Amino acid sequence: MPRAPLDREPATPKTPAQIDRCDRILATAARLGARHGLEEVRMQDVADQSAVSITTVYRYYPTKHHLFAALLFHLTQTATPPGPTTGHPVADVTEFMAGIIRDMLGRPLLARAMITSVNARRAESTVRGDYNLRRNILDVAGIAAPTADQIQIALLLEQCAYGILSWAITGETTPEQAEHDMRRACELLLAPWRRRTRTTEKRSNDH
Amino acid sequence: MPRAPLDREPATPKTPAQIDRCDRILATAARLGARHGLEEVRMQDVADQSAVSITTVYRYYPTKHHLFAALLFHLTQTATPPGPTTGHPVADVTEFMAGIIRDMLGRPLLARAMITSVNARRAESTVRGDYNLRRNILDVAGIAAPTADQIQIALLLEQCAYGILSWAITGETTPEQAEHDMRRACELLLAPWRRRTRTTEKRSNDH
Repeated sequence: MPRAPLDREPATPKTPAQIDRCDRILATAARLGARHGLEEVRMQDVADQSAVSITTVYRYYPTKHHLFAALLFHLTQTATPPGPTTGHPVADVTEFMAGIIRDMLGRPLLARAMITSVNARRAESTVRGDYNLRRNILDVAGIAAPTADQIQIALLLEQCAYGILSWAITGETTPEQAEHDMRRACELLLAPWRRRTRTTEKRSNDH
Repeated sequence: MPRAPLDREPATPKTPAQIDRCDRILATAARLGARHGLEEVRMQDVADQSAVSITTVYRYYPTKHHLFAALLFHLTQTATPPGPTTGHPVADVTEFMAGIIRDMLGRPLLARAMITSVNARRAESTVRGDYNLRRNILDVAGIAAPTADQIQIALLLEQCAYGILSWAITGETTPEQAEHDMRRACELLLAPWRRRTRTTEKRSNDH
């Protein structure tokens, strides 16, 4: 089976056609991962069901860990609040974070595949694990020019969510408790933002 | 090289002599892990420098991941506050948690070996990842009969610490920032304990 050597960096999609192929690959990985879990997903099936060659899959995702870590990155970059936002930073961020936990643990095999893959990638010394969920958190809170303390709080929320998910995917905690924990973490960690009113700056695209 | 099959559970030390051997193995793993990192540690060196046979090492720790995950478990079970406690739960728990972060990141190769190993063990479906640091947290706070909310807060602190360490071991954050993050997390997550005064119940052994 063709396989890209692991000592070179995976390719980054650049043209619209390449981005489209990668989007299809990630969507297929999400579907197959949710159904079968990391071990049972075959890269050949990902290629077939994405209508790309196996060589293309390996060019962008040299291993299943690359694939599922990329999927988590994609999901955190595209996550949006589950409902309309209220303009209250604490309420909006709480629903946003609880929604991420609920979505992820609603597909437990996929959640496990993604977290396991991120951990495996992080075990390699050259890989950064920054999924930059905190940019979305600040965006949901309507904070366009964050202070160092606001960045720190968003980072803590991200790290806490990662811990909560890590406990939940091994069955240490139930999905219900994980969501409950996330809401309590938001309540406590976001206390400094409680009296904050949304500034007048408009969020880009109002997504 | 003899190696216990991975499909059976590692042995648990029971007699004082067995516990003593495992303590020596863990102490050696800590020393070698801090110096060489996970990849470069050889199980044979761990055996030789612990004055036990390689068969003994594999009986209790079938893989390096078992060994370094067990070491983290051991360290979290035996962690104590770095200085005398003040009797103020928030201050005491903050110093306790900041001390754990500082100790761990003071030996970055070892921290990485332990967190990577825990993640690898968690990736196997049957393994629980509960290191029960929260029992120590409640103990440091002087809470002998915790409510559900107090257990939840201690768990959040543990999950947050795990996230903070996971970011730090890949260089996403510096050890200084990690400690700073941990202190801020304690300040926020422990707010409900701020007005709590230490109950009269004596902590066992006053360690």
